[in-house]
Amino acid sequence: MWSGGHFGDSYRKNGDLNSINKMIKVYSNLTDSELFALVQRPQMEENSLDATITEVFSNVKTYGDEQLKRYTLQFDKVQILSIKVDEKSLFDAYNEIDLQLKAAILVAKSNIEKFHQAQLPSTVSLETMPGVKCIQKPIAIERVGIYIPGGTAPLFSTILMLAIPAMIAGCKEIVLCSPPTFNGAIHPAILATAYMCGITEVYQIGGSQAVAAMALGTESIKKVAKIFGPGNQYVTAAKEKAQKYGVAMDMPAGPSEVLVYADATCVSTYVAADLLSQAEHGVDSQVVCVVSNAEIATQINLAITDQIEELPRKNLAAKALENSLIIVEEDVDRAFAYINAYAPEHFIIASDNAENLAELVINAGSVFMGNYCPESVGDYASGTNHTLPTYGWASSYSGVNVDAFLRKVTFQSVTREGLVDLGKVVIIMAEAEQLQAHANAVKIRLMDQNISK
Amino acid sequence: MWSGGHFGDSYRKNGDLNSINKMIKVYSNLTDSELFALVQRPQMEENSLDATITEVFSNVKTYGDEQLKRYTLQFDKVQILSIKVDEKSLFDAYNEIDLQLKAAILVAKSNIEKFHQAQLPSTVSLETMPGVKCIQKPIAIERVGIYIPGGTAPLFSTILMLAIPAMIAGCKEIVLCSPPTFNGAIHPAILATAYMCGITEVYQIGGSQAVAAMALGTESIKKVAKIFGPGNQYVTAAKEKAQKYGVAMDMPAGPSEVLVYADATCVSTYVAADLLSQAEHGVDSQVVCVVSNAEIATQINLAITDQIEELPRKNLAAKALENSLIIVEEDVDRAFAYINAYAPEHFIIASDNAENLAELVINAGSVFMGNYCPESVGDYASGTNHTLPTYGWASSYSGVNVDAFLRKVTFQSVTREGLVDLGKVVIIMAEAEQLQAHANAVKIRLMDQNISK
Repeated sequence: MWSGGHFGDSYRKNGDLNSINKMIKVYSNLTDSELFALVQRPQMEENSLDATITEVFSNVKTYGDEQLKRYTLQFDKVQILSIKVDEKSLFDAYNEIDLQLKAAILVAKSNIEKFHQAQLPSTVSLETMPGVKCIQKPIAIERVGIYIPGGTAPLFSTILMLAIPAMIAGCKEIVLCSPPTFNGAIHPAILATAYMCGITEVYQIGGSQAVAAMALGTESIKKVAKIFGPGNQYVTAAKEKAQKYGVAMDMPAGPSEVLVYADATCVSTYVAADLLSQAEHGVDSQVVCVVSNAEIATQINLAITDQIEELPRKNLAAKALENSLIIVEEDVDRAFAYINAYAPEHFIIASDNAENLAELVINAGSVFMGNYCPESVGDYASGTNHTLPTYGWASSYSGVNVDAFLRKVTFQSVTREGLVDLGKVVIIMAEAEQLQAHANAVKIRLMDQNISK
Repeated sequence: MWSGGHFGDSYRKNGDLNSINKMIKVYSNLTDSELFALVQRPQMEENSLDATITEVFSNVKTYGDEQLKRYTLQFDKVQILSIKVDEKSLFDAYNEIDLQLKAAILVAKSNIEKFHQAQLPSTVSLETMPGVKCIQKPIAIERVGIYIPGGTAPLFSTILMLAIPAMIAGCKEIVLCSPPTFNGAIHPAILATAYMCGITEVYQIGGSQAVAAMALGTESIKKVAKIFGPGNQYVTAAKEKAQKYGVAMDMPAGPSEVLVYADATCVSTYVAADLLSQAEHGVDSQVVCVVSNAEIATQINLAITDQIEELPRKNLAAKALENSLIIVEEDVDRAFAYINAYAPEHFIIASDNAENLAELVINAGSVFMGNYCPESVGDYASGTNHTLPTYGWASSYSGVNVDAFLRKVTFQSVTREGLVDLGKVVIIMAEAEQLQAHANAVKIRLMDQNISK
């Protein structure tokens, strides 16, 4: 129920807006069905890349490294001599990186390490009955793969978000793949960050072929057990295909999104800046704002029109805002019912009362509390992870954390005496499920008084 | 390298075996490539049910409850009046269940509760920098679905394995679907166990239509966020399809499997009983045994031929054994390198030295230590979960545990003072990634000295 039309119109009359509307539609006085319909994300295109990805997997399986080199020439326009990046190149990149950036990365790294170290689960061990011991032991996934996209704006921060929990979990082998698309090599910020994280196994391969290589293995790249990291539609489709080969992936993919709840204690210019920082990610970014009164909506829209002009990516951001919405909802409980139904990837609570309101959160990836906590602090450096569930998946998935890099393996031991009481229970239940051999495995032990080979 | 042929042949000469060979092939003196090739599971059939499942989802979406009733008549040959099972029926089943079975279930339930309660993670909270607080809070998935297959041998034990951790995690709504295939209703052991676990929302719908209903929602059955539980190929395909609708599933499916490591301190008759208890699950069950010398292999095969005759499911078990193998490997480290590469769902260490050997485990679902710890104790009652990763997925997936029913949501708060140091770091990193609006969200807060709306 778009009630901000007059506002947009009056603005347009001023003539200082180009053809793209830079304000967000405002919805108010919604019925339940109108409100909860607004959790819907835009339909993602059905993935029609299956034939392409199947061919890439087939070629990488058949031709291995040589095929990786051919694809790199074909797609990245780079002739590479070796697939692996030698360790000296990592060290060189580390030495050459801007000192201020290096210092910033070290602070971020330290915060991320502290928070993820604290997440490391310990072994659970107890006797459930006399003589029956059960243990749950966290064991790191042995070999994991990290994919980092290329381009001119390298996502080196994502290396921190994936390599640090992998290291803390205790993964023995951490592989990084990224395309050589910066002057014929991997961007030095990526190499330097990999070095700082202690990654030594870096391959200058990108796209779906990199995922195929990590999933299938080639002469140079040994198969991994789980693949992490963002990527374009080809990379995403390849991660899905990898599951057919027994290789797990971090989580389902979707466009990045933020939901801001702003009440009367918010600062509208901050909220506007937060909405824009999500919008600049790309035209498919999802930006939603729930406000406790209509005046806040007006203030936020005014601030957006001010701030957007200064952005290098302003056209991208303006385009993303066309699909964005501001919902006016005075009732806090109803507002949070909507927010939990939406299940946002990033959820900012722009309120002096944020810590109390945060108690109402059920479904979200990462929550930013208060007026001094923009999403960007979590994107980079507060310590939380920025690899988070999108597209409503926050209702069933966690963001990446230390758990994502380990399994909790259970162990049990039973003493001869312990088996007496436990065994009776097992026999009754197994026979009720008509699994006689299951019962027999207990009976043969209970009956056997002469223990020898 | 099949070296047990003479053994099978001599046995066949005795004439007391029917056409099915009841002994397991023995492999010894394997090269590395021969040994590690034996981690391969039989190829699973490519899922060709997509058209069927797509139609089921489409029909359930369009026609809702009425379609569920039609499918129940068509597939289960039962005309149901209501979709939901009323709570009185659950209570009646509980009252009518065999007392001995009820007592056994209560012991199992108590053990499973103790072990899963101990797994419940706590909130992690720390300051990563002065004024920067990060929190990781476990929050239960609000609404989960459990599927339990029908038939004459009801898997009531699986209800314990799924409902108990869901309850402990704190899931508000737990839904159970199972087909009415026992005299036109759900098997009373299933209803009684549901009652004992505190499940009140039970629907007498089975197959892919039950999964479609939980994934899409109908008039009677509200959509869930995650679906758990075993099932046939239709159920499995439907769980995969559910992901297209934003509904998660427990783990990829595959045939059940056991790997037994038996050294000179094993009891061969126990090992035989354990191998048979896996084999009786079905012809596609995977049964592997690694032994430290050839004599043990011979003893185990002898014991199998003895024990299999007594099994009601002996033909099923014998058929499964045809695909089974015993590997003789004297070197413990090499044996465990193979076992970790195989990544068994169930791993029994039949040795007096089991607890030490268990330290070598990297990839397994659940581990059974010592000569008095058959797999069946964990299948029912020791306290560990029996919903475990198969088909090599133990290298990247945990079995079902309390974590599977919750998300770890992160929260962060930053004070105005805390943002000064943290903000500088964020600005530098955001600008290096060319995300100016991300930097601006910090700058606007740092610059603004006049905090008001």
